[in-house]
Amino acid sequence: MTEKADNPQNAAAGGPWAAGVDLGGTKIEVARVGDDGRLLARLRRPTPVKDGPAAVEAAIVAAVHDLIVDAGSPPVAVGVGVAGQVTAASGAVRFAPNLAWHDVPLQADLSQALGLPVVVANDVRVAAWGEWLHGAGQGCADLICLFVGTGIGGGVVSGGRMLTGDNNSAGELGHTTVDLHGPVCHCGNRGCLEALAAGWAIAVRAQHAVADDPAGGAYLLQLADGQPTEITAARVASAAHAGDPLANKLLDEVAAALSAGCVSLVNAFNPRRLILGGGVIEGLPELVDRVARGVHACALAAATANLSVVAAQLHNDAGVIGAAARARQP
Amino acid sequence: MTEKADNPQNAAAGGPWAAGVDLGGTKIEVARVGDDGRLLARLRRPTPVKDGPAAVEAAIVAAVHDLIVDAGSPPVAVGVGVAGQVTAASGAVRFAPNLAWHDVPLQADLSQALGLPVVVANDVRVAAWGEWLHGAGQGCADLICLFVGTGIGGGVVSGGRMLTGDNNSAGELGHTTVDLHGPVCHCGNRGCLEALAAGWAIAVRAQHAVADDPAGGAYLLQLADGQPTEITAARVASAAHAGDPLANKLLDEVAAALSAGCVSLVNAFNPRRLILGGGVIEGLPELVDRVARGVHACALAAATANLSVVAAQLHNDAGVIGAAARARQP
Repeated sequence: MTEKADNPQNAAAGGPWAAGVDLGGTKIEVARVGDDGRLLARLRRPTPVKDGPAAVEAAIVAAVHDLIVDAGSPPVAVGVGVAGQVTAASGAVRFAPNLAWHDVPLQADLSQALGLPVVVANDVRVAAWGEWLHGAGQGCADLICLFVGTGIGGGVVSGGRMLTGDNNSAGELGHTTVDLHGPVCHCGNRGCLEALAAGWAIAVRAQHAVADDPAGGAYLLQLADGQPTEITAARVASAAHAGDPLANKLLDEVAAALSAGCVSLVNAFNPRRLILGGGVIEGLPELVDRVARGVHACALAAATANLSVVAAQLHNDAGVIGAAARARQP
Repeated sequence: MTEKADNPQNAAAGGPWAAGVDLGGTKIEVARVGDDGRLLARLRRPTPVKDGPAAVEAAIVAAVHDLIVDAGSPPVAVGVGVAGQVTAASGAVRFAPNLAWHDVPLQADLSQALGLPVVVANDVRVAAWGEWLHGAGQGCADLICLFVGTGIGGGVVSGGRMLTGDNNSAGELGHTTVDLHGPVCHCGNRGCLEALAAGWAIAVRAQHAVADDPAGGAYLLQLADGQPTEITAARVASAAHAGDPLANKLLDEVAAALSAGCVSLVNAFNPRRLILGGGVIEGLPELVDRVARGVHACALAAATANLSVVAAQLHNDAGVIGAAARARQP
């Protein structure tokens, strides 16, 4: 029933574990995670969004029970990352657009149904916990995780604590203005980092560039089977790697925007480590070095004295590993 | 010898006090500050920069001694704010450009000379401590102080702690990029908030605007006695308040840049209070409301749910009151 992760010695060990849940709009991922952050087993189920919160909660409970049966012991705690706004004290989901949820007491409901300690938190924040405790941020008390995927978000650890802010929404690093005359973002603000460097923005900008310059955009359009709306960030990455000039120009713009945003973050937070992850970084791993060079060139000397800019390590597992790690915290 | 502040009941009380020192490149301000943050007495002396660190330290020691004689009791601690980079653990001044200091063990030297606990910290950080504990930030666990003066700097309190960062340089909020195609900043980066909204930048931009449009700039130039290099931020404020169109256009640009920068900070840190202070804000107090409207319109709803944007309260006393407040902390 569960797909075993390839750590047989740990899977067999039967030691203490926590459950990490990544609750998305289309799928629920649930994993058994060892105290050392190793992924021991994982499940993936569709999210029954249309059936409402109770059905989604029941699906999570069933999946955790399957993990318990498989492990032969219950988890010490259950962590859930959800794409939405979560109230810190109660773990209630204030708003989750992908689930169309408003004010769902997810943490209380799951804790009651499972009879276990449950912690619900924002999914990006939870992924930052994963990188901090078990990925590229291990041993570091001052770090920023910036996840550049379809959108851009992050988490900030300062003085050994994950920052939450007043309203538990700290870390919306994609919505830092880097070009006050720039394009309008999904959030309504102008020139957000996300509006210049997120997956959706790269696609939109590439589609516009191809429309403006059909000759220069021929290769990109060909990769998209002639469908302009099928020009995606992944195809821009492929074209750039194949040497296409237009795609490389777009990539230069993404690198410049990401560098400018990271300069802001490094000067404001003064981290020791800046960790870059997410789908755009996975597809364009050269961005890590480009941002590193940009930040070291343009941020303040005091802020970069000990700084390293590195790639995230947990890839698609950051969500479940981070949720489990977060659940173990007091 | 000391100028009494106008709190006679406190000045006479003889209760516990701390000394706050604001060490600048031209003057040293030293104050007796009560436990409640009230300024009880203050001294101002020229900074003997040319005579080197030992002479400056001796001047500080002499001024603190004068306060002690005046008070009839020694302070519980001495706090010093210095415009420069300070090592957190030792309180040594790594670099202070206005003093031409490199690696001066100021905290250790003063502590030995005075026989008292001494804390040395960055002057802007110390002013943020003042606003937090005794000014516009009282009782708030998540706040940002942004000081817009000749330069722009700040301090961030998150979860009840003043953030220091890895290298004690967190809070360089003036060097957040708001226009990646914008003018070059003193720091070398392009389009920093400081390069668009600090006093020096307002002056430079006004001088350029007047050169580009002599007819539109006639009033500003008249205020500057016909000397283009005498067009300052203060004169732009005067001209704007008198209804001058060019000055008001410049003011609109400053408000837009400040708003964009504050949107970034609010989304990243999620403070409950955003406190604006410094000479530019004192001269253009309408910027507080303009930034408040900009931030509430353009930052994320979750980040602004409980946010208020307010003016700093301690004005020129933030440095000494904050230094004293910082010194009292464990």
